[in-house]
Amino acid sequence: MTARKIGLVGLGKIARDQHLPALAANPDLELVAVAGHGASLDGVDGFASLSAMLAARPDLDAITLCTPPGVRHALAAEALAAGKPVMLEKPPGATLGEVELLARQAESAGLTLFASWHSRHAPGVAPAREWLAGREIHRVQIVWKEDVRVWHPGQEWIFEPAGMGVFDPGINALSIVTAILPRPFFLRDALLQVPANRQAPIAAQLRFMDTAGAPVEADLDFLQTGPQTWDIYVETDAGRLTLTKGGSELTIAGESVPVGPAGEYPALYARFAELLDSGASDVDPAPLRHVADACLLGRREAVASFHFP
Amino acid sequence: MTARKIGLVGLGKIARDQHLPALAANPDLELVAVAGHGASLDGVDGFASLSAMLAARPDLDAITLCTPPGVRHALAAEALAAGKPVMLEKPPGATLGEVELLARQAESAGLTLFASWHSRHAPGVAPAREWLAGREIHRVQIVWKEDVRVWHPGQEWIFEPAGMGVFDPGINALSIVTAILPRPFFLRDALLQVPANRQAPIAAQLRFMDTAGAPVEADLDFLQTGPQTWDIYVETDAGRLTLTKGGSELTIAGESVPVGPAGEYPALYARFAELLDSGASDVDPAPLRHVADACLLGRREAVASFHFP
Repeated sequence: MTARKIGLVGLGKIARDQHLPALAANPDLELVAVAGHGASLDGVDGFASLSAMLAARPDLDAITLCTPPGVRHALAAEALAAGKPVMLEKPPGATLGEVELLARQAESAGLTLFASWHSRHAPGVAPAREWLAGREIHRVQIVWKEDVRVWHPGQEWIFEPAGMGVFDPGINALSIVTAILPRPFFLRDALLQVPANRQAPIAAQLRFMDTAGAPVEADLDFLQTGPQTWDIYVETDAGRLTLTKGGSELTIAGESVPVGPAGEYPALYARFAELLDSGASDVDPAPLRHVADACLLGRREAVASFHFP
Repeated sequence: MTARKIGLVGLGKIARDQHLPALAANPDLELVAVAGHGASLDGVDGFASLSAMLAARPDLDAITLCTPPGVRHALAAEALAAGKPVMLEKPPGATLGEVELLARQAESAGLTLFASWHSRHAPGVAPAREWLAGREIHRVQIVWKEDVRVWHPGQEWIFEPAGMGVFDPGINALSIVTAILPRPFFLRDALLQVPANRQAPIAAQLRFMDTAGAPVEADLDFLQTGPQTWDIYVETDAGRLTLTKGGSELTIAGESVPVGPAGEYPALYARFAELLDSGASDVDPAPLRHVADACLLGRREAVASFHFP
């Protein structure tokens, strides 16, 4: 079978760092066009907009969207309306309402929609889920602390409401815990620390409870210097499970568990190819719903202004 | 058939103003117990807590919850766990996550859960929905302006995050428009005006778009003096529909349309009795989801501090 022809929209940092290498390594998918302001890539057609790309390349088999979340819905709706399956970077939209409508649109058009959560494809996630399935959960702690100046240099949009601030990385943690815990959980209270000159939080403490009463707590920080921390600790009746480095290292009851090599984006595109083959969709809004709940229920506290260096 | 025995939790202002008269007028339901801090009512058993009420009155057929939304989930989960069907005041919870979990709990227990939206039972709502079903919608305007000092005197909790501020009345408008418009809509942007000494907004401007591109705009204000405004205007291909006074007066293309008498809460309890008969549930989180989306995507602006007189 020939590779499916993919058009990519939004040739920014995440596209260049992750999507392009993952697409290049996937034999089932072939990147043939890119679109966006000034998008240009050797050996690939470049277009100023999705509309121009769709008009010039009706042979495209699917579209992958790497733009910031604020404009994702309009692009996804346009691609679906043109009959193209769509893969969305995380989060799948700026609101829950638009994600629900996209899911309905894809379903009624019979097209694949893949709302991707890349951290769910970190190599420790699947074995963690399998081990936790049979356990009693006593307590869960998420510690997700990174330096926005390193990972999002100069990306002012990340502190706009749709950029979500510290929830941009924090939603990765939520995408993992919603995938590995055997019971669902819901928010009890939240503190959001918002720089005086910004709209979105730079730090947050979230307290959830699972349906059996176990606490699930998250400590998110966007100003971490030195070593970066993306860790999840799960205390169970059979000891502690530790998933560190964003899900790439797993320790259970003090023993290190061998997991596969890192490769979130290659796994994402393998999943997308699989969904395109079967015609199914994969849209789980739960991580975004937890963030929306934190914005709805969270107490806001003004903290020092933040400026990119 | 004998009347079903109802236990009510949260004997505050909304319970006394609306729930007690509506229950008294419904021949299928009989209020036999009340619970809450210092809850006491002539001719009815009074208990300090839901737990005490459930223990002393195992004959209760259903529970109705009139407490503020922050504590609604724990009470509803407890009542469902005791095998009792539950009716919830609006909003059905402090978060979308807890509403989803309650809906799942009720479904797996085979118990009725009724997440009520009283404004949907205003007499103009059903005829408005019927007339709009066949129309092309050009534009929708919601103007919802009331005086918090009149309607929520001294209720400090309403400006806490879970109290939702101006969304407490505004969600009534959203519950109506989500019921009468033929197409769903989603948030494009929002401005939330939050008093410097409070957590929740005292005014908000919301811009939604429906799936055909028609604008749906809402102007919410909690400081309206003089005449109070709870109006919805829908411009269509067949003229303008105007639903005023919270859904109790309807005008279509300049002609006043006769509707039934006001009676939102009597209609709510008639609906609850019907759900109890059929064993079905009625849980639509859409109005709360729109508010959560406004908190997620909305730009916040600090305005003058607010103090109750």
